[in-house]
Amino acid sequence: MIFGFNGDQIYVLLIDRENQLKNVISEYALPGNLIRDDENLDMAAERVLKELTGLSVIYLEQFGAFGDPDRIKKKEDQPWLKAVRSIPNARVITVGYYSLIRMSDYELNPSSFAKNAKWMPLNSIKKLPFDHLKILNSSIEFLRSNTKIKPIGFNLLPEKFTLNQMLKLYEAIFNKKIDNRNFRRKIINLNILDKLEEKQSGVAHKPANYYKFNKKRYETYLESGFFKFEF
Amino acid sequence: MIFGFNGDQIYVLLIDRENQLKNVISEYALPGNLIRDDENLDMAAERVLKELTGLSVIYLEQFGAFGDPDRIKKKEDQPWLKAVRSIPNARVITVGYYSLIRMSDYELNPSSFAKNAKWMPLNSIKKLPFDHLKILNSSIEFLRSNTKIKPIGFNLLPEKFTLNQMLKLYEAIFNKKIDNRNFRRKIINLNILDKLEEKQSGVAHKPANYYKFNKKRYETYLESGFFKFEF
Repeated sequence: MIFGFNGDQIYVLLIDRENQLKNVISEYALPGNLIRDDENLDMAAERVLKELTGLSVIYLEQFGAFGDPDRIKKKEDQPWLKAVRSIPNARVITVGYYSLIRMSDYELNPSSFAKNAKWMPLNSIKKLPFDHLKILNSSIEFLRSNTKIKPIGFNLLPEKFTLNQMLKLYEAIFNKKIDNRNFRRKIINLNILDKLEEKQSGVAHKPANYYKFNKKRYETYLESGFFKFEF
Repeated sequence: MIFGFNGDQIYVLLIDRENQLKNVISEYALPGNLIRDDENLDMAAERVLKELTGLSVIYLEQFGAFGDPDRIKKKEDQPWLKAVRSIPNARVITVGYYSLIRMSDYELNPSSFAKNAKWMPLNSIKKLPFDHLKILNSSIEFLRSNTKIKPIGFNLLPEKFTLNQMLKLYEAIFNKKIDNRNFRRKIINLNILDKLEEKQSGVAHKPANYYKFNKKRYETYLESGFFKFEF
């Protein structure tokens, strides 16, 4: 599950099964494939992502395993299973991994399978094959929980950003309006941002200050244990 | 992974492989077994726990999947694998589940396999077969993260408890001293406890008040979103 952020919405990277399987089915699915005998789960996740999208993502985190026996039994998924699997009705347990990336930092690589990979806005995804919608929802829950315990959102923001950009990211992750004033106060109180001298330029409104994430204080904060989170 | 609390330390439920496999090996292991074709992951976790320990635990939560190809290759694990598996060197992907229970509420059921199940203090476990030590450590990390985002510890305390008992639970989970005064202030500020009129009796020191968890406010707190956690 690769989540991207473009400053406004959360996107999800999907692959188009059509190009993998001409004339059988055309539908976007989560990137995934079978594990090889000689690789561990982390290695498999990295390899499959690279093969299907051309992306080498630095950080992938496991978020859950999915193994309902019925997940491969939907009628509409049978042609694809028959075309690509040597044992089409063999049980498949999926171990899900996710990552968050700044979309502008990564180009889908056109020399590989990238022509089949596509960013889709999270809120526009209503249907996916197998139990991929369930897996997607589970990964979003995981992302939200993670965002509660660590300022994970930094992976999605540009190096310098305004507090408003950061607010937009949190609003996109939680899919709801967040009170601007409280948000600013709480983020600043974490003491993990450096306020820069530089301000926005060329904006119609009063230019906002840029902030930068202070790596050292951020790491100290993460290591200092649960009371810092004020749970 | 079944964690128990006895008011002082965290315990882990282990099974003794000796009684499953006489004269071959004697070692405690995490409870676990293979999934059946017709069950999903949650069902398998419940069944295996019941079979191996007699426990019907209300709540099990998945915490991770473990699938290194080398995990079944340790020399000392071979006799057990050969004795109990039809394909001893078949790859096994483990999906780990955990639960927290108040030890006094559950009796290991002597009519089943319970004679092989045993509570071991977490801090005394130095060696386990396969990659079970890694799995155990991973579940502890998961438990700690969870304890940061929700007051999960309530499952481990008696119905009415003193703040000191609650502190001891958190100290046991995080395996470190926690400042008493800060802890009390923060726990009380969560506004999820009801202070009871009743106090401890028969204690040498000044009797402490009992508290009770307010289910309604606790649930409201959980649902109210991340800002309540003050992240």
